[in-house]
Amino acid sequence: MNPVELVLSRRLRMTPFETRVREQGVKSYTVYNHMVLPVNFSSTLEEYLHLCEHVQLWDVAAERQVEVVGPDALELVELITPRHIAPCEVGQCVYAPLADEEGLVINDPIIIRLAHDRFWISIADSDVLLWVKGIAWGRGLNVRVFEPDVSPLAVQGPKADDVMADLLGESVRDIKFFRFIETTIANTDVVLARSGWSGQGGFEIYLQKSADGVALWDAVWEAGQKHHIRPGAPNLIERLETGLKSYGSDMTQEDSVLECAFERYLHLDKPVPYMAKDAIEKQLEQGVKRRLSNVMIESSPLPPLRGLWDVCCDGQLVGQVSSCAYSPKYEANLAFAMLSQEVSNAGSQLTLMVDGQEYPATVKDDRWKS
Amino acid sequence: MNPVELVLSRRLRMTPFETRVREQGVKSYTVYNHMVLPVNFSSTLEEYLHLCEHVQLWDVAAERQVEVVGPDALELVELITPRHIAPCEVGQCVYAPLADEEGLVINDPIIIRLAHDRFWISIADSDVLLWVKGIAWGRGLNVRVFEPDVSPLAVQGPKADDVMADLLGESVRDIKFFRFIETTIANTDVVLARSGWSGQGGFEIYLQKSADGVALWDAVWEAGQKHHIRPGAPNLIERLETGLKSYGSDMTQEDSVLECAFERYLHLDKPVPYMAKDAIEKQLEQGVKRRLSNVMIESSPLPPLRGLWDVCCDGQLVGQVSSCAYSPKYEANLAFAMLSQEVSNAGSQLTLMVDGQEYPATVKDDRWKS
Repeated sequence: MNPVELVLSRRLRMTPFETRVREQGVKSYTVYNHMVLPVNFSSTLEEYLHLCEHVQLWDVAAERQVEVVGPDALELVELITPRHIAPCEVGQCVYAPLADEEGLVINDPIIIRLAHDRFWISIADSDVLLWVKGIAWGRGLNVRVFEPDVSPLAVQGPKADDVMADLLGESVRDIKFFRFIETTIANTDVVLARSGWSGQGGFEIYLQKSADGVALWDAVWEAGQKHHIRPGAPNLIERLETGLKSYGSDMTQEDSVLECAFERYLHLDKPVPYMAKDAIEKQLEQGVKRRLSNVMIESSPLPPLRGLWDVCCDGQLVGQVSSCAYSPKYEANLAFAMLSQEVSNAGSQLTLMVDGQEYPATVKDDRWKS
Repeated sequence: MNPVELVLSRRLRMTPFETRVREQGVKSYTVYNHMVLPVNFSSTLEEYLHLCEHVQLWDVAAERQVEVVGPDALELVELITPRHIAPCEVGQCVYAPLADEEGLVINDPIIIRLAHDRFWISIADSDVLLWVKGIAWGRGLNVRVFEPDVSPLAVQGPKADDVMADLLGESVRDIKFFRFIETTIANTDVVLARSGWSGQGGFEIYLQKSADGVALWDAVWEAGQKHHIRPGAPNLIERLETGLKSYGSDMTQEDSVLECAFERYLHLDKPVPYMAKDAIEKQLEQGVKRRLSNVMIESSPLPPLRGLWDVCCDGQLVGQVSSCAYSPKYEANLAFAMLSQEVSNAGSQLTLMVDGQEYPATVKDDRWKS
């Protein structure tokens, strides 16, 4: 299949780092939250190898924020997720899948608590802003809900701490995982969080003024020179190895939080109301029919996956693979698949169908073990 | 600026017509409602010339539907738009900009009334589904809101009637503008509406079963052979000439329905509640500061516009151009621009800034006259 060109227009919003990204020779984009998101500068494999050894600068401005602020902000944020948010301290971030009244996943954001009554919902690719605005208006809550001028720039990789320490001093090394500080870089205010969409460590720098995007990029870029910094992007191989599922690809609005195996992030008995409560209790009673799972295929690299591949067991269709990449670390193809509950336990032996070919596949736990 | 490749993944949904679109040699895409939308097969100018003379088949599956059905469906649909929907008959479609409690535009869909208590909101590029679901839940309304498996295929151009008459009989010529019938083509149920995103006439065929997409495409394609049918897409030149504004490009969630000059489609005094009522009344009282306008630039063709171009008057910035194309019909560049109220009347003489060059520009009415 031939590659196709992306036609740019105002509707696909540019990012504050766009000038530098183009200068660095971006080769391909995806579109995410009505904004461009760089995908490749060289190749996915080259970028993977560099990310695991050095440090990269990622334009992830497309991870937009939904700000919820006001007297009823906490009540509203509690309503939209089965995770208990009250215990999240100011200065902390939590991964909090959002679920509607049917228990279906609306998004899987990080929620950042900026103040007692002020949150950023740092979203995957769906218009959470509209959903939260609708709920707030419908319930008559006293909050303001809007998209602020906030664009994350990620510094990811094992040398990310060195880069940020050179830039801001040694104390940044003390920022704990999923905690943030407020500081300035290149004279612009930023929220600096230890987080990011890889398992290689690093930070997300939340720029709060688009006009300062190039200055922020340049400051980090310069500090990164002696640490072999390169431009990069969320990497398919790395995210499969780390087990990061992608909203829209590995799970959609058709899937419930239980089917997505999100229990460990949720507090289903939390002591405050949330929209999905009744639906989730019913699903727990009836049992879940499908389960998002990790699947390993020990073969040479499979061709690129674009849509879905079928997974079978004893000749019966039991699910579909939604993401797949060949992992140098495991010397196998790693995949995420939504599978029938009965075959979703680690150890299940299944068959993956790719272009009419059959491949033996094994269900693994979410760390690719057992 | 070099073209960039669009990386396809499951998150950017494919359409039911995708196989045929690829076979026809699609060159470029945009992304719209988390789905791919073809932009070009040859060039915008070639496709414009063909569209104005013959007939084209457009994969516009990305115009997704939000179905609202149930006892409170009409109440909900009335809430979200300042247009009065009760007078819309079953079998009719209406253009109905959606506005939130601040009077800001959330989307500018066609609303299709399928039954007294059943509507399709045929949307531009924003997750109206989430907004409407949030409002419905927040207000405790007795409705079901979901995205059905419905994908429009458009037949546009002066020969569209001939194609559809060959396919379905002469009676299709009697379907009035913005009216629809329910029928079958290639053994699949469709809603056939006289509508579409061009001023060249034609139909939108709402496929209701993705699996039948290729069969539907093939049936229309075959009937179109003797009428010089070609694949196409919403065309930049044609939409400028026809005056069709695009949500996300020419207006965004930052703009009010009054700023977008939508009054002619609205019934601000409608006798039922709607969310934007108080905000709009206040804006009417205070006066609107900006106005979406048509601007003509009589020069040779301008370079492609990607973001925004500034518009000045007496050296002061008075607005920005969001869409522009050179029109063979008017032998001038046509543009849409959000302009300060005081310079937005037809006849105003302004200056457009493009890459440091100045061009005289004239505000026109919405039919490019006076």
